[in-house]
This record gives sequence, structure tokens and C-alpha cells, in this order.
Amino acid sequence: MQPRTAFQSKTVVTDLVLPSETNPLNNLFGGELLARMDRAASISARRHSRRIAVTASVNHVAFNRSIPLGSVVTVEAKVSRAFTTSMEVYLDVWIEDRETGESIKANEAIYTFVAVDETGRPVKVPELIPETELEKERYKAALRRKQLSLVLAGKMKPAEATELKAIFE
Amino acid sequence: MQPRTAFQSKTVVTDLVLPSETNPLNNLFGGELLARMDRAASISARRHSRRIAVTASVNHVAFNRSIPLGSVVTVEAKVSRAFTTSMEVYLDVWIEDRETGESIKANEAIYTFVAVDETGRPVKVPELIPETELEKERYKAALRRKQLSLVLAGKMKPAEATELKAIFE
Amino acid sequence: MQPRTAFQSKTVVTDLVLPSETNPLNNLFGGELLARMDRAASISARRHSRRIAVTASVNHVAFNRSIPLGSVVTVEAKVSRAFTTSMEVYLDVWIEDRETGESIKANEAIYTFVAVDETGRPVKVPELIPETELEKERYKAALRRKQLSLVLAGKMKPAEATELKAIFE
Amino acid sequence: MQPRTAFQSKTVVTDLVLPSETNPLNNLFGGELLARMDRAASISARRHSRRIAVTASVNHVAFNRSIPLGSVVTVEAKVSRAFTTSMEVYLDVWIEDRETGESIKANEAIYTFVAVDETGRPVKVPELIPETELEKERYKAALRRKQLSLVLAGKMKPAEATELKAIFE
Amino acid sequence: MQPRTAFQSKTVVTDLVLPSETNPLNNLFGGELLARMDRAASISARRHSRRIAVTASVNHVAFNRSIPLGSVVTVEAKVSRAFTTSMEVYLDVWIEDRETGESIKANEAIYTFVAVDETGRPVKVPELIPETELEKERYKAALRRKQLSLVLAGKMKPAEATELKAIFE
Amino acid sequence: MQPRTAFQSKTVVTDLVLPSETNPLNNLFGGELLARMDRAASISARRHSRRIAVTASVNHVAFNRSIPLGSVVTVEAKVSRAFTTSMEVYLDVWIEDRETGESIKANEAIYTFVAVDETGRPVKVPELIPETELEKERYKAALRRKQLSLVLAGKMKPAEATELKAIFE
Repeated sequence: MQPRTAFQSKTVVTDLVLPSETNPLNNLFGGELLARMDRAASISARRHSRRIAVTASVNHVAFNRSIPLGSVVTVEAKVSRAFTTSMEVYLDVWIEDRETGESIKANEAIYTFVAVDETGRPVKVPELIPETELEKERYKAALRRKQLSLVLAGKMKPAEATELKAIFE
Repeated sequence: MQPRTAFQSKTVVTDLVLPSETNPLNNLFGGELLARMDRAASISARRHSRRIAVTASVNHVAFNRSIPLGSVVTVEAKVSRAFTTSMEVYLDVWIEDRETGESIKANEAIYTFVAVDETGRPVKVPELIPETELEKERYKAALRRKQLSLVLAGKMKPAEATELKAIFE
Repeated sequence: MQPRTAFQSKTVVTDLVLPSETNPLNNLFGGELLARMDRAASISARRHSRRIAVTASVNHVAFNRSIPLGSVVTVEAKVSRAFTTSMEVYLDVWIEDRETGESIKANEAIYTFVAVDETGRPVKVPELIPETELEKERYKAALRRKQLSLVLAGKMKPAEATELKAIFE
Repeated sequence: MQPRTAFQSKTVVTDLVLPSETNPLNNLFGGELLARMDRAASISARRHSRRIAVTASVNHVAFNRSIPLGSVVTVEAKVSRAFTTSMEVYLDVWIEDRETGESIKANEAIYTFVAVDETGRPVKVPELIPETELEKERYKAALRRKQLSLVLAGKMKPAEATELKAIFE
Repeated sequence: MQPRTAFQSKTVVTDLVLPSETNPLNNLFGGELLARMDRAASISARRHSRRIAVTASVNHVAFNRSIPLGSVVTVEAKVSRAFTTSMEVYLDVWIEDRETGESIKANEAIYTFVAVDETGRPVKVPELIPETELEKERYKAALRRKQLSLVLAGKMKPAEATELKAIFE
Repeated sequence: MQPRTAFQSKTVVTDLVLPSETNPLNNLFGGELLARMDRAASISARRHSRRIAVTASVNHVAFNRSIPLGSVVTVEAKVSRAFTTSMEVYLDVWIEDRETGESIKANEAIYTFVAVDETGRPVKVPELIPETELEKERYKAALRRKQLSLVLAGKMKPAEATELKAIFE
């Protein structure tokens, strides 16, 4: 299988925040943003693997900035690293000010997808080639996150998570 | 402020999986489940705090079991621990077999909410009292998760995260 | 077929009222509440019969109390009586005050479902065992309602509806 | 206030049955039909009263005929009788066969609406003038139904419901 | 195939404008109106042809009048002319004032549909018989529009579009 | 007002086709695509004008290629020309093959938006600068289309539409 670049999986979804998607403070519901990011990420994983891609996990997501009603929100997803049958997808979320045209980073999130065949069985995916500095950094950190995920799931002993352990020393 | 039990915040949402919510394998979209859990969790946090509650973060969520079209899905949310202005909400997700009537655990997830006033400013919340064994266990682990969250956000030095560090030793 | 208790069919759906579901007075549309109750009731009937359950009729429903935007609404459904292939489902609807945490009864409704096989043909359902005082009262009244329904549909002569006739004497 | 004819309130809503609105037998959900009928009826009541109209009650509705996915469904609503501040709306539902073009009656339903001002207070509505034979018949029966409704709500003694009592003699 | 009148394809869809369908000025989104008109027109074309009808094109549509939140909007669609396998559908859109009951014309639009069999292959449709003055006028103009469409698609030389050319002379 | 390039208004919306958006042949409804394009185009016009942008008209749209269920659809919108208070937005729609990764052009469409202030009154917009060959070509053709639109609306005499008339000679 031919490796692909992160850029080849880039998926952009720009949309408005409508009244039916907002909480009592007139900001986008956290759950609605999680759902939008999942759709963008699944398309990104599908573009990398050319397979059906199903959500395997969502990394820790912090909602640092609220997104008001009427905002234009852009979700950008790119595969950050491919493992045997899974792909980590990194998402950046921006909102833009209508009057100044400026874009502000509102969120980041990391989802993991598994490529499957029509019966739902996992299948191999191509390697991912990071190109930009940011892509390379995220590629490297993806391994650390995979170890954390395995430790939290009880599938790896903390002592073996060498990449991860380093943070706490 | 009078402390409240975990039971007092218990929120149950039972619903079907409809065709418009499924992926090409006819299973519930990960993002759709994330959105349903967010709604249940926000009601649970609101019941504990009697305030507007906005999503602050979502912990690591693993989708271990797919949820097929037509399933009856039950999301149960309870506040697992209250901090100064934030609440950790623990979610259990079950699907049931129509013919046997059996319920199978499909997922767990942990969301954090912040209680806010009408202008969006954080306000204090009552303490949470865990009662059952499971509630006590989740209450205890919540502190560890909070530390992990602070470390990942760069707001606490790994060396100070005593509860957390213990796992890696 | 083993009889089942009303409790075993209990189905709870708690959800918010969103802007897209409200009328010009900012209250939940009657039709939206009817649809939510139908979904809860169908799950309850399915839990009792372990079959596909389709709506056969809706009893008289009065909307006594309006449900404002942003409310937390809880619909609770339980099978109140089982007949040969049909089940009467009783629904209670509560809304709660965010600040006091108090629950107020907003509505009651009664739906009837028929259990069917995959081809849509009616199939037998287990008997229902009422346990609490309220369940027993509703169980008893269900027969009267069935007679009224048969009379209104022209399938029973008013003179034969002994349970029903009694009310008018 | 000038009386208006039933015809002046006639409201027609023709629409398709989509996959997201169907049960496991691929027929329209009962609750979805109840919601569509509520919207059509509320517009009919608004046309008669020229006021905001809110759902007061739904009469007994029987789902005699299932409505398959892909059907063209026509809901026709007309005010059948006006009382002081309330209006009874009669609904007829047809589905049509694509190949023969024939329309089949699938359902009837009766909703009651109350006209309100911007603060939600009931306001008077014009009288309704029935014109066709069917409109006159429904107009007459509306009084009987109102009495049944009052009796069931405990607001009228069965013995006083002269129109209604007659049926059981 | 027996010709059918325009009246036989008449399709009326009356509905409210809800908050989730409005732009920041609280008027119905243009795209939402385009989607509603498409659904009404597809039913009209299906009624004429008794076949599955798929959208082939949308003529120039001007949004001359904004449609505010809460409006009652009526879309009326009728086939205006049938060609070999295609049908032109003419749509009129009205909004009505709640207090005066007056209807105002808000929009017109013209869609073209193709009748297809279950495999998506175009099939012949019956001729359309216009009856009223307006139907006859629209029937005549439909040919001119078809030529314009062919010219714009590069399928007819402008010089051959005799009906169309006449306008510019 | 500083002129802006077409590129600065570029808006990309990538999304899946879900079951609730498809016709009986399992292809995306024409009306659903019209609505998606309207949302993308309105964001593009808003980015150019930094104002609220409301749909003024939709040019002739032909649906040449059907878009099957499960497709990944990308709508790309860019302002093609700015007039005094209006903007023409050009849309390109692609669908991609999951297995080969190839993108196929499925549609083109042209919408016109007007920039308005908070009261809905039209306001001036910056000039648009086309940069690529394609942008320049579309920029030039936009004037011809504007004349056609004015002629069809009866606001310009055909004889004065010099750009347009040329096509028919």
C-alpha cells in the first residue's frame, strides 16, 4: 500500500451555528461540536484509507472557548498518524469574526478511527507521511497518545509505556 | 450549599437508533452517541447544580461495541464528583436485545461541566455525596482524572500530580 | 409466555426543549410532545412484548400545562395492561424547575400498541402484572377505556360496554 | 367578530415519508403522523381565529392503516366547530398509490386548539359556519365530543351531558 | 398514455417557518425555501407521471420578498408542460398575514423533473393539458424556457432557438 | 473599501449523504443539494462583504449527475464578482470515489447574495479581484448573467443587454 501525506486526507467543513444547536447561553452545544468533528474526522480517515472508517475513540477534548449563535465555524481534520488498522485524526476548529474577518482558534481534538471492510472487520491502512513542522510534531506525539490510551484501557503496563512515562519524570 | 447525592442527579435517556444516525455498516455514528451523552450529562450537571451547565471537557471515550440500527439505547448519567465550580459526570450506555430483553454495557464516558450564571460566569456548586460502592470508586478516581486533565492542559506540573503519578510507579 | 410486571417495561426519556420545537409563545409544540411520548411508549411496549410494537391508537390527551423553552422534560412510560395482542401504555410527563429542583406533573397520556412479527402480523403478548396501587388502578381502568374505544369504533354496542356504561348512571 | 366558513380554514400539507420517520416495518411512526397533524391543525385554527393557536387536546386517534416509506401523504385540516375561545379541528389523512394515482383514506383525527394573545391568555374566536353535508355532520358531533371531554376531565357531570348520554341509551 | 390536466398534478404544502430555518435577520433561508419547493415539485411531477421523478434543473429563482419567522408559507406546485420524459413544474409561494388573513405572493419558481423507472432510466410521460388562462400562458412560455435551457447547456445553437431569439429582437 | 480576492471568500463544505436526504433511487434530493449550496454560498458572500448576506437569486442549476447515498460531497463556493451591493457566488460540487480516491465534478451553480445591515437594508460591498484564469473567466461572464437576470425580471430592455445579446447573433 502506497503511503499518503497528511495533506491528502485534509477535510474542511465550514458551517453556521443555528438556533437549534445552542444552549441557554446561546453558544453551540458541546455535544453538537463533538458530532460535527466526528463527521469531518471520519471523512478524513476514509480519504486516507479508502475504506469505511468507524470511530474507535475520542481523546480528551477541552472546550476552551464558547462558540456563539450565528458564528461561522470551520472544522479542519487531517490524519496525524496511521497505525496497523487505525488512524489518529487531528482536528482544529476556528471561528471567525464577521466584521474583521479574523479567524480565532476555538478548539482542538483528536479522534481515532479504525478502517474496516463491508463486514466490519479491521483492515490494514497505508502509512502516513507528515510534511509540515506541525504535522511532524503531531505525528510524533501520536505514539505517546496511543500508549496512554493502551494504559488507560489496561492493554499496556504503565511501565512499558516508555514514551508516556517520560512526561512524569 | 447543601450537598447532594449522586442519585439525585441521575438522568436516564432511552431512545431508538434511527436510519439517519447510522454509518455505512448500519451502526450508530460515534459522533451521534457523543452528542446524546452530552445532552444527558448536561441535564445531570444541571440537576446537581441547579444552574446552567456548559460542557468543559470530554474525557477519553472508547467505542468498544457498535450499536446497530433499531437498537434501544439507554444513556444513564450521574455526577461522580463536584469540584469548586465544575462537576464530573459519569455515563454508562447500554443496549438491549429485543428478544431476550437482556441489557449489554456498550460504553462508558466521562464529561466535565462547569456551572455558570446567566452571563456565563462560573459559580459554585454543592458537594457531591457518593453512596454506592461504584459511586465511591468513581468519586475517588475523579481526582486522579482531574490531575491528568490539568497536566495535559499544562496547568499542573506532572511532579505535583501525586494521585496520577502513582499509576506509573 | 411468562407474565411481566409493569416495572419491567418502565421507560424514561429525559430531554431538553430546544428552540426548533417551540411555538410562538416559546412553549413546546403539542405535536412534538405527542411524538416524544410515542417513542417512549413504543419502547415500553417493545420491552413488555419483546416484539416490534406499532402504535394502534392514542387516547384522549389534554395539554393542561405549557412546557417552556429550556425546560427539562421527563417522559415516563409503563405498560398498564396487556390484552391478547395489544398493550395499553400509560405515560406521565414531568417538567422540573431548575432553581428549586422541583418536578411538576405536566401531562398524562395513554397510547395503545400492537405487537407484530417481521411481516406486520399481530402476535400474542405476555400478561401484565400491576404491583403498586397506581398500577393496579390504571390496570383496572384500562378495561373501561378499551370498551369506550370499541364503542367509538362501532365494534361494540354501547349497551354491552358494562364497565363503561356504569359511569353514566 | 365575523363568522367564517370551514372552507376558509382549510389547510393542506402534502409530503413524502422519509427513511428517518419510519419504524422497523418501514412504516411511518405513529408519533411522526401525530406531529404532522398537529402542525396542519394549528395552521387551520390560526386561519380561523387569526390568533396564535395552541394545542389544547387530541381526541382519540386510531391508526387503522399503516403508511409505508416513500408514500405521498396528504393531511387536510379544517375547523369543524368554534366554541368561545376554542376550536375543534378535524383532520383527514390520505395516502396515494403512485401507479394508479388513487387516494386511500388512511386516518382521521380531531384536535382542539385554544386561541391566545401574545401573553398566552385565551381570546374569543369567530363562529364557524359549516357548509357541506360532511361539515354539518362534524359540526353537530363536535358538541357531543366536547361533552365527553368535559366528563372525562371531571368538569361536567355525566348526567348533564345530554348529547353524550343519548348514545348509551 | 392518457393526457392529464395541470390541476390533476396540483400539490399544496402549507407549513410554518421555524427558528432553525431562519437567517440572522429572522427570515427563512433561501436554501430552505429551495428545498421545500423541490419536495412539492417532485410530488407534483410524480402525480403527473405516476413515476419516480428526479430533479433535472431549477430555473432562475429570484427571492423578492423575505419570509419572516413564524409565517405560514404555502407552496403550490403544478406541472406546466410535459415534454418527452421531462416535466416543467411551476411553483407559486404565498405567505399570509395572521391578523388580516391576507395572502401575499412571495415567490415563483420553475423546476424541471425527469420521470425514471426503478433503475433510473428516463421513461415517457403523458401530455399535459392546460385549462385556465394562467396555465395556458405558462404552458406556452415553457417551450421558450426549454430552448433557453438547451442553449445555456450548449445543446442547441442560439440561432435555432426561434422562440427565445424573438425576445431579443 | 478594500477590494478582496476571490480566494479570500473561498468556502469549503465537505459532508456525507445520509439516508434521510435521499430519493427513492437512493440519490441525494435535488432540494437538499440546493440547500447545502445556499449555506456554503452565504458564508462565502459573508466573508467577502463582512456583512449579513441574504440570498437574492439562484441562477439556472442543472443536476447532471446523481449523487448516491454514502457519497462524500464537497461544495466549494467563491465570490465570482461583486456589484454595488450584490455578489455573485460560483459553486463547484464534487463527489469522490471511496476506493480510487478520485474526485468527479457533479455540479455547478451560481447564486446571488445581497449584503445587508442589521435592519435588512442593502449596503455596499468591496470589489472582487479575480486571480486565476478560471476566476477571470467567471468574473467576465458574471456581467452577462446579470443582464440576463435583469431582462428576465423586466428591469432591463433586451435591446440594452449588449453583453447578452451578443450570444444570439
